[in-house]
Amino acid sequence: MPADGRARVVIEGIAPQVDGGRFAIKRVAGDRIEVEADCFADGHDTLACRLRHRREDDAKWGETAMVAIGNDRWRGEFAVPDIGRYRYTIAAWVDAFLSWRHDFERRVDADDLRVAAQVGAEIVANAARRARGDDRKRLLEWARRLAATADMDALRELALDEAAAALAQRYPDRRFETKYPVEFPVVVDRRLAAFSSWYEFFPRSASPYEGVHGTFVDAEARLPYVAGMGFDVVYLPPIHPIGRVRRKGRNNTLVAEPDDVGSPWAIGAAEGGHKALHPELGTFDEFARFVARARALGIEVALDVAFQCAPDHPYVDAHPEWFRHRPDGSVQYAENPPKKYQDIYPFSFESDEWRALWEELHDVFAFWAGHGIRIFRVDNPHTKPFPFWEWAIARLKREHPDVILLSEAFTRPKVMHRLAKLGFTQSYTYFTWRNTKRELTEYFTELTQGPGREYFRPNCWPNTPDILPEALQIGGRGAFMARLILAATLCGNYGIYGPAFELLEHVPREPGSEEYLNSEKYELRHWDLERGDSLAPFIARVNAARRDNAALSHDGSLTFVPTDNDEILCYARVDATRANAIIVAVNLDPHHVQSGWVSLDLGELGLDADQPFQVHDLLTDARYAWHGSRNFVMLDPARVPAHLFRVRRQMRDEHDFVYFE
Amino acid sequence: MPADGRARVVIEGIAPQVDGGRFAIKRVAGDRIEVEADCFADGHDTLACRLRHRREDDAKWGETAMVAIGNDRWRGEFAVPDIGRYRYTIAAWVDAFLSWRHDFERRVDADDLRVAAQVGAEIVANAARRARGDDRKRLLEWARRLAATADMDALRELALDEAAAALAQRYPDRRFETKYPVEFPVVVDRRLAAFSSWYEFFPRSASPYEGVHGTFVDAEARLPYVAGMGFDVVYLPPIHPIGRVRRKGRNNTLVAEPDDVGSPWAIGAAEGGHKALHPELGTFDEFARFVARARALGIEVALDVAFQCAPDHPYVDAHPEWFRHRPDGSVQYAENPPKKYQDIYPFSFESDEWRALWEELHDVFAFWAGHGIRIFRVDNPHTKPFPFWEWAIARLKREHPDVILLSEAFTRPKVMHRLAKLGFTQSYTYFTWRNTKRELTEYFTELTQGPGREYFRPNCWPNTPDILPEALQIGGRGAFMARLILAATLCGNYGIYGPAFELLEHVPREPGSEEYLNSEKYELRHWDLERGDSLAPFIARVNAARRDNAALSHDGSLTFVPTDNDEILCYARVDATRANAIIVAVNLDPHHVQSGWVSLDLGELGLDADQPFQVHDLLTDARYAWHGSRNFVMLDPARVPAHLFRVRRQMRDEHDFVYFE
Repeated sequence: MPADGRARVVIEGIAPQVDGGRFAIKRVAGDRIEVEADCFADGHDTLACRLRHRREDDAKWGETAMVAIGNDRWRGEFAVPDIGRYRYTIAAWVDAFLSWRHDFERRVDADDLRVAAQVGAEIVANAARRARGDDRKRLLEWARRLAATADMDALRELALDEAAAALAQRYPDRRFETKYPVEFPVVVDRRLAAFSSWYEFFPRSASPYEGVHGTFVDAEARLPYVAGMGFDVVYLPPIHPIGRVRRKGRNNTLVAEPDDVGSPWAIGAAEGGHKALHPELGTFDEFARFVARARALGIEVALDVAFQCAPDHPYVDAHPEWFRHRPDGSVQYAENPPKKYQDIYPFSFESDEWRALWEELHDVFAFWAGHGIRIFRVDNPHTKPFPFWEWAIARLKREHPDVILLSEAFTRPKVMHRLAKLGFTQSYTYFTWRNTKRELTEYFTELTQGPGREYFRPNCWPNTPDILPEALQIGGRGAFMARLILAATLCGNYGIYGPAFELLEHVPREPGSEEYLNSEKYELRHWDLERGDSLAPFIARVNAARRDNAALSHDGSLTFVPTDNDEILCYARVDATRANAIIVAVNLDPHHVQSGWVSLDLGELGLDADQPFQVHDLLTDARYAWHGSRNFVMLDPARVPAHLFRVRRQMRDEHDFVYFE
Repeated sequence: MPADGRARVVIEGIAPQVDGGRFAIKRVAGDRIEVEADCFADGHDTLACRLRHRREDDAKWGETAMVAIGNDRWRGEFAVPDIGRYRYTIAAWVDAFLSWRHDFERRVDADDLRVAAQVGAEIVANAARRARGDDRKRLLEWARRLAATADMDALRELALDEAAAALAQRYPDRRFETKYPVEFPVVVDRRLAAFSSWYEFFPRSASPYEGVHGTFVDAEARLPYVAGMGFDVVYLPPIHPIGRVRRKGRNNTLVAEPDDVGSPWAIGAAEGGHKALHPELGTFDEFARFVARARALGIEVALDVAFQCAPDHPYVDAHPEWFRHRPDGSVQYAENPPKKYQDIYPFSFESDEWRALWEELHDVFAFWAGHGIRIFRVDNPHTKPFPFWEWAIARLKREHPDVILLSEAFTRPKVMHRLAKLGFTQSYTYFTWRNTKRELTEYFTELTQGPGREYFRPNCWPNTPDILPEALQIGGRGAFMARLILAATLCGNYGIYGPAFELLEHVPREPGSEEYLNSEKYELRHWDLERGDSLAPFIARVNAARRDNAALSHDGSLTFVPTDNDEILCYARVDATRANAIIVAVNLDPHHVQSGWVSLDLGELGLDADQPFQVHDLLTDARYAWHGSRNFVMLDPARVPAHLFRVRRQMRDEHDFVYFE
């Protein structure tokens, strides 16, 4: 038998939640969290349901009443004003007072009313016993009058008095309440975790002089250019000393020339490892100035954390127990037979010394956090054990709740999702390879409506230093613009690898490859940022639209709009207050002009079917008068392959002139 | 930090399961249970996954290997040969031997192979340490040869030897295995739990003489008639003494005449309560003979358990603490204001003496189980607390694992589902009110494919003593036939309330009511079973088809077949071995002949698109030659409103004559 079989309420089907509360849902500071659950009991008694919530570091629960929304489903909400961790759960009970009141309203028979008044007097007297002071006195008085009133009309009015009912409800009988046995965790991040635009560049290619190794000072000089495009995160590939042993040459050749600079991801050399700066980039002071200058421009610096070592990384000698050794005594390099990566030593997480390894890797994050860095792009997290990330991220976020970690796991879907569940703030996505209308519609429907929406925050990249997708290789300028628009308007977080992106770099190392020819991963590049065909002004307009339109932020809705042309992808976004509405139409064909009709859901956009409205293209400043659901678009990839429309609803003033808001 | 951070495998997304293992999935003895899970680790190492399973009363786990089926999903199965409770869970680990072998197959470089052979020798030697006897010797010998073989071809052959690999896999290194933390329960019932046909009748109306109270002896005489229709469960409304205080009269009138027999659900009088027999029905010996005679005819007797009391039930005096009392000292009758049911006293489950009440109610089941009863139809379980049912059913099934409980909860969907989750074997459904093609398609798709399929076993009733649905009031004989066919062929369990059903009883107490006129609930009825229009022969044919065709049993598939006529519902069912296929087409319009084209999925039916096939109507014995996917049907409600086709595949013998299997 249960401890008390009189706890009659069932609570189940609580949403949101991730894996029964095993993992946290993610929100940003200032959000309100809406929670629903199925709550019901036997019979037809009336329930009371409470949403319980607290900060994880505060033992005291707050409670808000939940309301029934039909089919035994209840809904409540609570606010998460600050970053950190919260918890919520639900309690519910069969409420004797509410049941009595509900029945009383429906009684017709005078004898019944009289008996019911006696029953009610007892219930209210019990509530009085739980009250103190004036409340107690008022409840006792109400109970006395319920028992004593003889006139039926007076009794009915007395029994159903709203103020008295509200008072009684403050002292419910919760002896037999059901408490849901799980507390559901919430991670609350700052807004940038959900809405950010990233710009990745190699500081060593930032020198104004061709062939000269760039420095933090050069990178600092590049920042106004990046800010001018409207990005708010600058992400640098690893800035540590680069291994010399088995260094790769240009275009990933096996043998480096003496002047080859090597891959920044081959971390560690005589000068130091993950906590050192590459000497040619500059000093910690110069790095600090770079970070400070970025901050002054409204940009936060993100660093790359790649847990792997060049053969000459100091860890290899100092901690041989953190690596696997081959029978010949050599350290096991990375491999996926028949492929070998002899310039990279992975850590062995099955080492007996795994605890010390975990501590050291955590210390790498902590070290850079100590230098003011709060955003980390984590390289290949899917090749390190999941329990390590869960532990490391939890610890790091306890120490620095404002930390943001982007998971660079271009891998199988379930692995990507697990990393997001266990704590990564943002995740790279398959966007990079989703090109057709069907692919994009299905993928973003899954991202915004699938279970991952509670924990998987996508960050969409049209390109990276590792990936020059086929669409950009063959689609020309129109494809670059379309892919940027899609990334920036389908997704709260997006980023580009520049200047390769805005300068339309599109030649692969060889046909069929996704690697860049003359990739910056293996050599210095010199970029002509002033080129007339640069997409920088276009990117600036897109980022300005993101900044100025709440509909494009992380909490704007996303609905795909039917079109009669498979090359035209159209979608509508509306902000949470429904004050701002955006319609995006993109020509996915980079080679031909495409036109077609889009079929809007006017109600969703807050529009009246009978009134014309204006759509204002934020890319070209053009304005169109539209009317009704079906409207025509024609998009030329040789000019601008997309419309980014802000909907301007018609407004009339007191003189009946037509304005648009 | 976790206890061991080296347990790298993630296990999640286990199916089947109910609410994370909080409740059991349901199966029948002899089933094989297929279990799937997402299992993956960091990196690209090879995993080993094991499905672990045991009887709940046997501490020892069995293990079967799971196989990868793509997208990190693994599948395994185990058998549940006997009734009772089982458990299953999953264990998985990164398998050093399998990873080594997987990599070895892909290596090309001779140096690599040599080093890999050394690594493999060490892994195999470690396996040998876990082995004993001959196995150990053979593994050590294999390890020695792996280390010593110089010739590359010989080494490759040796390393990839299948028999040696199988031996090594018997001694895996499971130190870092992940065990899923939940054991998922299974309730295994006998086959009748999932596949049964019920016939409900009032024994008191079974007398051969009009106006005479029927007895168990009369009911016994009725059994061959019931068996002749092919039913395997006979369900009797309550057979206990009926209260005299505030007894209801004919047609549910408030005041009974002296000769009114009262409702069998108003349980308890001076002669006794839930453990007594109504004196006019007969003695325990006569009851036992009735049960034995039924068994001899292949029929099991189900009793009604209705936990409520007439005012003169002995409990009311003996255990006043089990009832709620009004301020005037009277016992609180059942009510749902403004409705009152003064002839019924509900138990108060919030009583301080709830433990004793629970014990007594359990004893009611145990009492009848002691009289050989193993099937109970439970009246209104949704008006008693869920924790009571969970406890009572678990206890009863521990004592009598072959018990079957049918939940008579015609109530809100989540309440019905909760009762099924917490242990009821079968559940009444909304079938009774689902009439249109869309309603039936949606409802049975939900029942067979929704989450409830793991725990909610529907039992479909075209009528009950409480419910004469509108479709039967107005649809005539055709509607009765159609509703029976639907219940019997859409659902593993179904039942009718007879002889009202087969004798086409269709007049409501008043227009708009679903209550029968002159309902047997309040009076004796005399039925002319020999009437020429009786549906008994038709019902016998339908039940024979159920018995003879595995496709119609509980584990036959159900697929709705598109038709071009909204009044024609068509569906196909195929048994688990795919040897038996049934196509049902029903005219839902009881008034008009309807015809149309059905579009079969031939592959699903095991048919060749190029070969004609025969469909054999088991209702009329007519045979039709069909060909291809689209075929024509025409159904006349004035004759038979349905086809119940068995598909006869064409076979040719050695002389090339055409036969049908």
